Amino acid sequence: MGRNNWGRWGDDDERGALNLLTPDVVKAAASSITQGRVYSLGIPIQAHGVPLMDYRGTPMRLTLQDSTDDGIYEMYGCHTGTGAHEDVLVMAAHTTSHMDALVHVYGDYRHYNDVDYKTMRALGGAQKLGIEKVGGLVARGVLLDMVAYFDEGDWVPLGRNITANDLQSAAKKQGVEVRAGDAVLVRTGYLQFWWDNQAKGGPQPFEQAGIGIDAANWLAQCDVAAVASDNAAVEVIPFDNNDFLTVHKILLVNAGIYMMEFLNLVEPARDGAYEGLLTVAPLKVTGATGSPINPTFIS
Amino acid sequence: MGRNNWGRWGDDDERGALNLLTPDVVKAAASSITQGRVYSLGIPIQAHGVPLMDYRGTPMRLTLQDSTDDGIYEMYGCHTGTGAHEDVLVMAAHTTSHMDALVHVYGDYRHYNDVDYKTMRALGGAQKLGIEKVGGLVARGVLLDMVAYFDEGDWVPLGRNITANDLQSAAKKQGVEVRAGDAVLVRTGYLQFWWDNQAKGGPQPFEQAGIGIDAANWLAQCDVAAVASDNAAVEVIPFDNNDFLTVHKILLVNAGIYMMEFLNLVEPARDGAYEGLLTVAPLKVTGATGSPINPTFIS
Amino acid sequence: MGRNNWGRWGDDDERGALNLLTPDVVKAAASSITQGRVYSLGIPIQAHGVPLMDYRGTPMRLTLQDSTDDGIYEMYGCHTGTGAHEDVLVMAAHTTSHMDALVHVYGDYRHYNDVDYKTMRALGGAQKLGIEKVGGLVARGVLLDMVAYFDEGDWVPLGRNITANDLQSAAKKQGVEVRAGDAVLVRTGYLQFWWDNQAKGGPQPFEQAGIGIDAANWLAQCDVAAVASDNAAVEVIPFDNNDFLTVHKILLVNAGIYMMEFLNLVEPARDGAYEGLLTVAPLKVTGATGSPINPTFIS
Amino acid sequence: MGRNNWGRWGDDDERGALNLLTPDVVKAAASSITQGRVYSLGIPIQAHGVPLMDYRGTPMRLTLQDSTDDGIYEMYGCHTGTGAHEDVLVMAAHTTSHMDALVHVYGDYRHYNDVDYKTMRALGGAQKLGIEKVGGLVARGVLLDMVAYFDEGDWVPLGRNITANDLQSAAKKQGVEVRAGDAVLVRTGYLQFWWDNQAKGGPQPFEQAGIGIDAANWLAQCDVAAVASDNAAVEVIPFDNNDFLTVHKILLVNAGIYMMEFLNLVEPARDGAYEGLLTVAPLKVTGATGSPINPTFIS
Repeated sequence: MGRNNWGRWGDDDERGALNLLTPDVVKAAASSITQGRVYSLGIPIQAHGVPLMDYRGTPMRLTLQDSTDDGIYEMYGCHTGTGAHEDVLVMAAHTTSHMDALVHVYGDYRHYNDVDYKTMRALGGAQKLGIEKVGGLVARGVLLDMVAYFDEGDWVPLGRNITANDLQSAAKKQGVEVRAGDAVLVRTGYLQFWWDNQAKGGPQPFEQAGIGIDAANWLAQCDVAAVASDNAAVEVIPFDNNDFLTVHKILLVNAGIYMMEFLNLVEPARDGAYEGLLTVAPLKVTGATGSPINPTFIS
Repeated sequence: MGRNNWGRWGDDDERGALNLLTPDVVKAAASSITQGRVYSLGIPIQAHGVPLMDYRGTPMRLTLQDSTDDGIYEMYGCHTGTGAHEDVLVMAAHTTSHMDALVHVYGDYRHYNDVDYKTMRALGGAQKLGIEKVGGLVARGVLLDMVAYFDEGDWVPLGRNITANDLQSAAKKQGVEVRAGDAVLVRTGYLQFWWDNQAKGGPQPFEQAGIGIDAANWLAQCDVAAVASDNAAVEVIPFDNNDFLTVHKILLVNAGIYMMEFLNLVEPARDGAYEGLLTVAPLKVTGATGSPINPTFIS
Repeated sequence: MGRNNWGRWGDDDERGALNLLTPDVVKAAASSITQGRVYSLGIPIQAHGVPLMDYRGTPMRLTLQDSTDDGIYEMYGCHTGTGAHEDVLVMAAHTTSHMDALVHVYGDYRHYNDVDYKTMRALGGAQKLGIEKVGGLVARGVLLDMVAYFDEGDWVPLGRNITANDLQSAAKKQGVEVRAGDAVLVRTGYLQFWWDNQAKGGPQPFEQAGIGIDAANWLAQCDVAAVASDNAAVEVIPFDNNDFLTVHKILLVNAGIYMMEFLNLVEPARDGAYEGLLTVAPLKVTGATGSPINPTFIS
Repeated sequence: MGRNNWGRWGDDDERGALNLLTPDVVKAAASSITQGRVYSLGIPIQAHGVPLMDYRGTPMRLTLQDSTDDGIYEMYGCHTGTGAHEDVLVMAAHTTSHMDALVHVYGDYRHYNDVDYKTMRALGGAQKLGIEKVGGLVARGVLLDMVAYFDEGDWVPLGRNITANDLQSAAKKQGVEVRAGDAVLVRTGYLQFWWDNQAKGGPQPFEQAGIGIDAANWLAQCDVAAVASDNAAVEVIPFDNNDFLTVHKILLVNAGIYMMEFLNLVEPARDGAYEGLLTVAPLKVTGATGSPINPTFIS
């Protein structure tokens, strides 16, 4: 079984497993920095060349001000040739690399900590559990490179259900252990598949490798703070047990464990950087269901 | 004089002072974590209650999917009562807490490293120096609390030009020193002023305290990687020497030093957390002139 | 009493009073063109100088392509000096001059023709009664200039409840009559008030003159196709009988009569152009609750 | 040769061929209404099933307020069960059925009436010739059904250059004539092709039938007010004489004749409705380069 954290940090808690990240845990996590190498785990935010879900629309960077506006600051004592470029961003919160807020997924009409699914409103946004409650997540990051573990090519075969035993064996092989309060980064190679497949012009399949119910239960028992992956949903698709979003319900809904998707884990995997300090800072959009992110992993 | 870093890291360099952040510098920065306290420096992203520049529009969180869409996932084996909330974000890159890309400001029609100001295009975006070149900034953060230093109230009087001597004296009083590769966080109390003033219903003045030419030159000589503040532009307004964006030209354009605005520095100041690890991860929007951010400061 | 048109044009009807606009009615309406003068009734769509409701955000015109993109079409045989400018529009459907779809307002959880209020979905949009069902509205337009009728200044005093008798007396004074299938344009002078008040820097009050329950009932009995005004809601505010959106419920919900707000009626009123052909063509946004419009009135 | 209208209506004129539409011309146009049938020529605005240009992004209708916001108007005396649905629109001005502003295309760095191409600014928008100058276009509409004329299937073969002689012969066959001040609607069948091709899953080719230089010159000589088509650019692609936007330069730039694209002309063609009153009312977006439209054609 997994773990139910409803009420564990109070009936009004809106931060879930982030409560595990006490100053002592953060200090211990910081001690995992040994090389001083910085990895930026976000994938580009652009209209092409990255996996996009059709219903979420295409991210747009629109220019707000450019050189055609030269001269508009003269009234402020602006020298000729001095100016500024600016733009506007239009994008879905769950497009490209992103973090799910606790208000993102519900099961039995309930979010984490027994919050009703109608707490999310169209105009008003999330009345509870919005992404702005995260602040900054700072945890020990543990990378489990399942591509290297299975050693069957550049990615774990699409649709493979990664189990608790798989994760444990990979950790053992890598010489790392998963501890309470960790952020676990599960590399499936999905992005590598996606880019290769796109280059070949193939249709992008819905299937992906990812963790299933067994692994999710184990991670919840481990009392981790967050689980991330390089795929679209952390979890295996088709969904384990044919239960839509089942892993989200185990981790996000029941345990209040944060989930992040579409992280680029190629470089730390290549360097064997299996441990480090992970910092994730979702935009503080009041009432939002998630945020695009660009996590920083420091080995 | 300040410092000109054009060509220092190669004629094609697009990362500027981030080049200072070598693994050794990062490791040293990590050693500044002593308390394990995590501060999220972003201010909320919302339509009210935060300083917004009119021409940048109002940030909008728009609901993409909510409980009214119940049932649309049935075809994927979705249980009754299971679903997901999502939203879309529309906002200017330089709204609320943000980082400027090196392509943001130009002087004499040139950006950092002699890049022509027409390198920014409306449709194509920044062909060079875009925010996606940052990846993740990880540096030792040094907070200089100028409000405490001047000790004249809850904020430095609007329009005060903070000098190099002011910064040095504040650092000395706090017992910290500014080193090469640091990210310097200059607290002016502006946000506190803004919130107080808004509560009183007053019009928001254009003036603000901030660093001037003298301080900018000194920070450039110190070879810092980034300078941030809790005000709208880091620099004093009215602009020093009545030269529009003069500090941006010294830091961003000439020295390739990154700038961040509207950071909430109240909590680390209150705790006397003057040193720590600062991580900043702007969204990797290809070709963008900046990004909203939510920096993490770990003391 | 008003009129209930549910079922009148079939249980599945989604066009309401537009069904009145048969070819014969349209031909008769066309005969009301006597002067050949064309009036554009839309107010500008811009961020300032027009009444905006805060929760609907600020309309934004963002440049998609400008002269900085010169040269991108060379591959298509583009001559030097040839190019195109384009932009992107971000705005609420009910901002500035707009038409309400039948799916806009509900009463007792029901829209026109007994459609459940949950027929509107966040992701999916309106499953019925969306604005795309309108196509083009072509009707005889009758302008009732209540400012001239009351003759108490440049606008009808804010909060005045305009009655059926007021409308009838104004029509009589103007020498026009209201017929079945007409689009009735009720001028209250609100926009004139708003612009004058803004010029004085005054706060914009919530109150406005408009029709009340009595006038709405009469218009429904007249079997008109649409009712429009130069104010924010057609109806008087504070709402008649203190019943929120009560006139919308009489006209839009019960009778399927279309409503349009924020039309600029100054010029036809000045010319005494009380009859003409009105054409309104809301954007065919699939599933939308309304559309910005720029109605054309031809006297 | 075509026609150059620069200066014809004054050096400061920003309305071009709309100046032809005097009250007498409008009255004459109104007399072309004989059947009272109303055709809505706009195609749907939605993310799928309509031709979209990739760089213009996907139009988005986003819900602003829905049934999850129930209760927010209680403070205004709102009865239980009463409420309103609203949405926000994000779309490019030239997406789906649209009208080009005179500021849209330039040749030799000049727009209509010798306006410099830098009159368009990213932040400021069009300083001249913006779409808000149109107001409402009311003209006699003449439909030339080139599909019926060529009689080679459901659409004119892709890439066919429609000539002046083709247009004249079609007009003669239909028994209509093109007059000064007319809006000429050229049906190529392109939309029919596009929909058929999409149903088959084929890639959408860049080629399209449309008018070439010869036909454009003739239409300019005819002194028409507007030219519209059911294709993407009115003009044939590949561009006539391999000159990018050559027809736009003849009509829009030199003659100030308005252009409209992606109009659905199937229904009037089917009915043999070759003459009528056309009304087009682009949104009055200040400084915009064009507007989505939904023209109304009344036969």
